[in-house]
Amino acid sequence: MAKSSDLVVGIDLGGTKILAAAVDAQGKILGRAKRSTDSEDGPPAVLNRMADCAREAVARADRSLSDVRAVGIGAPGPLDSDKGIVIFAPNLSGWKNVPVRAALEKTLRKPVFLENDVNVGTLGEHVLGAGKGIRDLVGIFVGTGIGGGVILNGQLHRGLNGTAGEIGHMIIQIGGPRCGCGNRGCLEALASRTAIARDIAAAIRNGKKSKLGGKDLDPSDLKSSDIAKALEEGDRVAVKVIQRAAKAIGIGIVNIIHVLNPEMIVLGGGAMAFGDHILPVVRKTVEKRVLPLAGDHIQIVPAKLADDSGVLGAAVLARQRMK
Amino acid sequence: MAKSSDLVVGIDLGGTKILAAAVDAQGKILGRAKRSTDSEDGPPAVLNRMADCAREAVARADRSLSDVRAVGIGAPGPLDSDKGIVIFAPNLSGWKNVPVRAALEKTLRKPVFLENDVNVGTLGEHVLGAGKGIRDLVGIFVGTGIGGGVILNGQLHRGLNGTAGEIGHMIIQIGGPRCGCGNRGCLEALASRTAIARDIAAAIRNGKKSKLGGKDLDPSDLKSSDIAKALEEGDRVAVKVIQRAAKAIGIGIVNIIHVLNPEMIVLGGGAMAFGDHILPVVRKTVEKRVLPLAGDHIQIVPAKLADDSGVLGAAVLARQRMK
Repeated sequence: MAKSSDLVVGIDLGGTKILAAAVDAQGKILGRAKRSTDSEDGPPAVLNRMADCAREAVARADRSLSDVRAVGIGAPGPLDSDKGIVIFAPNLSGWKNVPVRAALEKTLRKPVFLENDVNVGTLGEHVLGAGKGIRDLVGIFVGTGIGGGVILNGQLHRGLNGTAGEIGHMIIQIGGPRCGCGNRGCLEALASRTAIARDIAAAIRNGKKSKLGGKDLDPSDLKSSDIAKALEEGDRVAVKVIQRAAKAIGIGIVNIIHVLNPEMIVLGGGAMAFGDHILPVVRKTVEKRVLPLAGDHIQIVPAKLADDSGVLGAAVLARQRMK
Repeated sequence: MAKSSDLVVGIDLGGTKILAAAVDAQGKILGRAKRSTDSEDGPPAVLNRMADCAREAVARADRSLSDVRAVGIGAPGPLDSDKGIVIFAPNLSGWKNVPVRAALEKTLRKPVFLENDVNVGTLGEHVLGAGKGIRDLVGIFVGTGIGGGVILNGQLHRGLNGTAGEIGHMIIQIGGPRCGCGNRGCLEALASRTAIARDIAAAIRNGKKSKLGGKDLDPSDLKSSDIAKALEEGDRVAVKVIQRAAKAIGIGIVNIIHVLNPEMIVLGGGAMAFGDHILPVVRKTVEKRVLPLAGDHIQIVPAKLADDSGVLGAAVLARQRMK
């Protein structure tokens, strides 16, 4: 069989690493590459690393750049997808109004498309992951923050300013804990990994015993793997905090179901490492709180693409925008 | 000029009254009719009154039923729009699984379309009211409850079970006041007319002085017109309670903006009688709480069609479904 030239490259730009993949028309990854982001070197260095990563992924697929139709990029936002500019990225040092598309189109001489990472992750799950064939779907990604993406009528819904899907900044507890955005009681302030670590440290400080540390525990030292282990061992502080977070995620999903009544909710992100302790509580909360009729037949499922959701979603983005 | 035969009839079925209007292709009302609902007479009697209302509206437009292409109906829900059945209507005595479409198609011998009243109100505002030409719009109607409708891509978004737009049952205050739906902290439990009356009575019971009554005030005796008057006169209890409700509505809108990033929010319903005390607080709350970029250029406007939103929306429904 002749080698297909119908290749796209997906790039996942994260705060710590850059991932790239050469992806065929069936959504199969033919080659991969990875670099440290090292954003302290400044945007031009990072942009060069992204281009290097793209080239290496193509080379590892045993193809050449001439086989590549387009490049898709998922990046932290806020960003201007139409102009291909990252407006501001708190986790990337010095990233303000960085013209990612223009820079990479110049270097790689391919059409480049840019979208925020959670929208891209949602696209990936919709086309290649848990949401295949679903018409209306909302992706929720629980990591250090909580982000999301909204698929309506089979298309990514971006909204007037391209900011749709800010699921983590739904306020679900007026007067609740302070969020990084300045508001109180956002879903992100109740159920992100950051909130979970904060609540574990606070419970210990207030005298609860836990294997996770003593009263001097710094929440930023808490690793997800340690929390996961404590959960497995039935650590009561960990279990209680995770359950509370899962209930908050359930309430957020109830709100989404009441407003949009989608067919599917896809839950992903790093905190899904605690998935077995989260998903059943989420589903039970939704079942208990959702209005009659509204919740019928709605699927709440874990994301499928895991660490590949970024590069695969970016590849989907590239294909969709080329059309 | 020959009389147009391109007429539709819109019917607004409410708990206390039935309104009907004969509406031309430009959305102009040519004839109206009104009956008391008197739902205690049972569904067949109410269905007959709806048909009578439709006939009278057409007669008052100086037309005959043969000029009518279709009939649209806005009714309280939950309902099954596809089957044309009202599943349950708490404000209509004995209404369980009432086949409204089948009954009226038989009587009037016209295609009949049924949709819930707030969706119909949103459709009306979108096509003939405040939202003309807007692509993505959310309507929020604050009355004894809070309902809403979602227009995406110029079309009513109904969702998997037809229940999209249940804006009033977004939970925005975990642990907050009990809602009629059984949950706590729904927007409806914080900002509906019912919640406003409850909070005014509670404030007075707790010793606050108000022109609206004494410690024995029954919240169900509080009339909107009295509250409006108290607001005009600067009654501190009324002002404070309405401001708190308006802030809650603002928070609800922030959540909608974060999830959907629509172009416009249309605020309607009976509580807009307090509009001058609500809208500025709503706008200020949104401005203060919305994420950077997300709120840019989004319009928050009062509904325009007032008491005609039901019949006009139902007429729009009939026209859209005929296509």
